[in-house]
Amino acid sequence: MTTAAAARERLDEAARFIYEPASGGLELVMENLAALAESSGVPRGMLSHVVGGGGKLLRPTITLLAGGLRPGQEERVALMATAVELLHVATLVHDDTVDRSEKRRGRATVSSVWGDDVAVLLGDYVFAASATFVCDTGNIRVIRRFSETIMELARGELAERMSKHDWTQTPEDYQRRIYDKTASLIRTAAESGGALSGAPEEETQALRAFGYNVGMAFQIVDDVLDFTGSEEELGKPVGNDLLQGTLTLPALLFAARRPDEPAVRRLREGSRDEADLAAVVELVRNSSAVEESLMELDSYRNAARAALAVLPDARERQSLDALVDYVAERRS
Amino acid sequence: MTTAAAARERLDEAARFIYEPASGGLELVMENLAALAESSGVPRGMLSHVVGGGGKLLRPTITLLAGGLRPGQEERVALMATAVELLHVATLVHDDTVDRSEKRRGRATVSSVWGDDVAVLLGDYVFAASATFVCDTGNIRVIRRFSETIMELARGELAERMSKHDWTQTPEDYQRRIYDKTASLIRTAAESGGALSGAPEEETQALRAFGYNVGMAFQIVDDVLDFTGSEEELGKPVGNDLLQGTLTLPALLFAARRPDEPAVRRLREGSRDEADLAAVVELVRNSSAVEESLMELDSYRNAARAALAVLPDARERQSLDALVDYVAERRS
Repeated sequence: MTTAAAARERLDEAARFIYEPASGGLELVMENLAALAESSGVPRGMLSHVVGGGGKLLRPTITLLAGGLRPGQEERVALMATAVELLHVATLVHDDTVDRSEKRRGRATVSSVWGDDVAVLLGDYVFAASATFVCDTGNIRVIRRFSETIMELARGELAERMSKHDWTQTPEDYQRRIYDKTASLIRTAAESGGALSGAPEEETQALRAFGYNVGMAFQIVDDVLDFTGSEEELGKPVGNDLLQGTLTLPALLFAARRPDEPAVRRLREGSRDEADLAAVVELVRNSSAVEESLMELDSYRNAARAALAVLPDARERQSLDALVDYVAERRS
Repeated sequence: MTTAAAARERLDEAARFIYEPASGGLELVMENLAALAESSGVPRGMLSHVVGGGGKLLRPTITLLAGGLRPGQEERVALMATAVELLHVATLVHDDTVDRSEKRRGRATVSSVWGDDVAVLLGDYVFAASATFVCDTGNIRVIRRFSETIMELARGELAERMSKHDWTQTPEDYQRRIYDKTASLIRTAAESGGALSGAPEEETQALRAFGYNVGMAFQIVDDVLDFTGSEEELGKPVGNDLLQGTLTLPALLFAARRPDEPAVRRLREGSRDEADLAAVVELVRNSSAVEESLMELDSYRNAARAALAVLPDARERQSLDALVDYVAERRS
């Protein structure tokens, strides 16, 4: 077996271990999604096109694991997990639209099949559908947190677009942005599981911290891989984010450490020259900025794992613990 | 004074009469909107561009009037009115994006200033912001109804787009569609005012019926005007809906009464010929379908007015009553 195949095998095994205690809940989620697609009144299979896709269901699994630590509220927790997945799907539909993407989860995107206008409106519909599932939990704190999450997601995507090629950004700006864009929903996924299972406040806070830190780690892994992966692994050019003007942690750290690098200076002065961007991609790849980003990643991973200490010693906690490494080791 | 100027004068006076008891509430709404624009963290005045626009604030005014019938909950009602206005704004931002409109309320649209991608994401942000204001009312029934409303709005816009040039539609399909697209939010605006003011269930139901019927009337007026107005009044070509393939009540009634009209037959058989569409516009304008649509309009107006009977005999009720005629008589 090649090294890559062995790594893939190990990851698959980790995934089975993580998802196992959530399997009953995931069935309820699939039923909720199927019922929505049946009853929606939205034309011609559009909804089943997006909710029937082959996503990894990572976010709803986090809700189910968090909510499963204190058994007894399986249905309410599954409603929330359904909402979390739908919210994620809604953001993907809109992101693919504004990014003009052709494929998602191996299928043609909504915008490429039915056009941008349908994609915008179908995304709105899925956002609203997600909110109705949260309403059915009857928990007003969770409902409010959910609305805030949608605001944060939209604000994060907006900030990413508005800050393209903006070299005055700091690593702190980057952190705020990835909280909004990625960690906010993963935080909500974990926190709401605790709140809806009737966990003591201390545990719900711990789940919130867990979700926050896993979410930050998740995005940093993505952003580092964009520099360190191969074009084959990534399915897009190495350094694609930077080539498109999106400045992530490795690029920002590099620019902070090596402000006088000629290509960096030209970009800071407003150049969007492709050769300069490609040169900086190469420099970042081979710099200590990668190592520094991975150290940042490790501190989020450690914080996520530490947050689990106060939680009940249940099988679900082992899954949450394993999830920390799983998120950091994935290669796609 | 010309007839048109006299009519305009009469409408302005009606508007002053209608809005007057809501003026305190509208100030709270404006404060809420200003606070949101200050604190949002969304880049560079985007939010104030859309919420500071010169809208007529008709929907929040309905909430304030409905909620003012039973005084004592002014702040909660104003939160809801803010949410209703934000939801309306969010739908406008997305509608303008998918319609590629250049102007809204006398200003350049978000999509024309910042691009479609920003408009999609800013619309999402405003949707979510509206939901946080509803959450702050603390009333879970109202929150759930609000989520359903967003679903209905998106479904109505989707249905309108998917049913373009579809001559198999019936007047009943049209009614379902305009409920989703227009009446749903006006119903929610009225109903939530009742629910949040602590009105007895019978009154809340009456406000719901009032809002539903006013909303249906509102859309039918629009759709009739599209045929009977002049190009100067409308700011777009006469029969523009039909020319674009959107089939509204007058067109559907005409096609049902005169199925053998040659141009109708060709359109039903799949023609999208501009000359055929223009010919049918002329035929509809001069047919009894207009009169029949106005009779339908009147039945909604009568139902709206009848629903007010059970409500407290307060100044707000007089405004709601006047609003029924105001909505039906507007010319823009």
